[in-house]
Amino acid sequence: MKIALVGIGKIAVDQHVPAIAASPDWELTATVSRSGRVNGIEAFTGISEMLAARPDIETVSLCLPPVPRFAVAQEVLRAGRHLMLEKPPGATLSEVHALERLAQAQGVSLFATWHSRMAYGVAGAKAWLAGKQLHRGRIIWREDVRKWHPGQDWIFEAGGMGVFDPGINALSILTEILPTPLHLTGAEMDFPANRQAPIAARLDFAQNIQADFDFRQEGPQTWDMEFETSGGHLALRMGGNMLEIDGKETAGESDIMGEYPALYACMTELVRDRRSDVDLSPMMLVADAFTLGRRNIVDAFEF
Amino acid sequence: MKIALVGIGKIAVDQHVPAIAASPDWELTATVSRSGRVNGIEAFTGISEMLAARPDIETVSLCLPPVPRFAVAQEVLRAGRHLMLEKPPGATLSEVHALERLAQAQGVSLFATWHSRMAYGVAGAKAWLAGKQLHRGRIIWREDVRKWHPGQDWIFEAGGMGVFDPGINALSILTEILPTPLHLTGAEMDFPANRQAPIAARLDFAQNIQADFDFRQEGPQTWDMEFETSGGHLALRMGGNMLEIDGKETAGESDIMGEYPALYACMTELVRDRRSDVDLSPMMLVADAFTLGRRNIVDAFEF
Repeated sequence: MKIALVGIGKIAVDQHVPAIAASPDWELTATVSRSGRVNGIEAFTGISEMLAARPDIETVSLCLPPVPRFAVAQEVLRAGRHLMLEKPPGATLSEVHALERLAQAQGVSLFATWHSRMAYGVAGAKAWLAGKQLHRGRIIWREDVRKWHPGQDWIFEAGGMGVFDPGINALSILTEILPTPLHLTGAEMDFPANRQAPIAARLDFAQNIQADFDFRQEGPQTWDMEFETSGGHLALRMGGNMLEIDGKETAGESDIMGEYPALYACMTELVRDRRSDVDLSPMMLVADAFTLGRRNIVDAFEF
Repeated sequence: MKIALVGIGKIAVDQHVPAIAASPDWELTATVSRSGRVNGIEAFTGISEMLAARPDIETVSLCLPPVPRFAVAQEVLRAGRHLMLEKPPGATLSEVHALERLAQAQGVSLFATWHSRMAYGVAGAKAWLAGKQLHRGRIIWREDVRKWHPGQDWIFEAGGMGVFDPGINALSILTEILPTPLHLTGAEMDFPANRQAPIAARLDFAQNIQADFDFRQEGPQTWDMEFETSGGHLALRMGGNMLEIDGKETAGESDIMGEYPALYACMTELVRDRRSDVDLSPMMLVADAFTLGRRNIVDAFEF
């Protein structure tokens, strides 16, 4: 099936292009980007041109930052194409609900992806936690924004989500693996004096779960979560890719394909079955943190 | 039916107590409040005591600020009582979803009230707007926080919502009367230098709708919304209580009972039918504004 990729930046080049290339189902047929392109693939600079020129491309995958994403997503759906959204699926909950309604009205598939849910250890963690009593959970998600988002000022603009851009990956895992839904009970966010989005956040959830997100981590990077339960201790490390039970690493499942290839495999099924998959629970927790959270002003940040 | 009122502050005394007194369905049987009480009504200082002492009271109405509300709400539902929540129904979307699940599991009714939806002009505005093309909408909600929330510091604390406490009334009307769902496209918020919640906010919605919320309005207060449509001009003034079509005030419907009496009449029906009514769309738009909005720091505010 033919697919077009919109927004040829770091995540598209690092993840989407290789995942599509490796897929038996998808053929990258066009790109849309103001300046980026992929060797050997027809390149457009505007979504409208691409949609008009290539009615044969039935599916579009968007890798744009959250704020400009809605207008493009709306145009794709109005043109009757299936749509796959990089996380987070939009800048606001209400705009993603609007996309859901539009996809349904158009009879096309909408997939709000959460790549971290496809990490190697996630399904195993979910299975192990099922039926156990949770005593305590701790999430530490600390990375260097200069390394992972070099010069990407949009991430600190209003709606860019700041440290919740990686933090929402943790929340997407958490909302997937826990046996019962979570709710936020408190939050504190650090806003650089010269920026509109937080560089760090500490969240408290019911069920004695805490999360610590920080964009200022130099040296080793940490994407870990640990849970104490009635049945022992579980740790998910490396962004969900390594699962430890009671301190012992479990064997990876050899048939799992990696995060982005798994997303494109899901999209194949959604398009074939004309279904959508839009779970906004990670994004709702971020919106709740912005609503409930205390704001501290901290040192200005420059890339 | 017997009802207990929790949180005997300004809104309880001004609105809930008279509405219950005027209702043919409800009898105010107990109050719960640290310091407030209602003459002639049994007064408790803690929710647990009241629930234990009065198993005959099957319904509880909460008028607490949003942040402390959840723990009390959870206790009421766990005790198998029906629950009515003053707006906003909680501090976060995720906690209200948790209450919804709990009410369902307990087989009791949960009513997340939006009193402004019961204002005299709202049903007429909704009927008039149905089927018309909306060209433009403008909401102005400006009031004096010192007059309506004298000394209520909680409103400017994290989770207190600031100017969204009245603004959500406008959003509750807007989401009720418009023929199609709204989504936010931009927001700007003014935070006093010494406070954790905004004192003013300007919101942009799709469909060419703008809202201007301000807590610093002295002199005449304004709670107006106006719409230009394919079929003429509609204005709702006085917080939804006065409806004007093409500049002419329409006759009020004499059988409408006023905001809080109407809420208690709805609660009667919900309890009788064992149904719940939880519409979070106004609160989602507030969460979206906090997520997407630019933050300006403005002059410190003291009551």
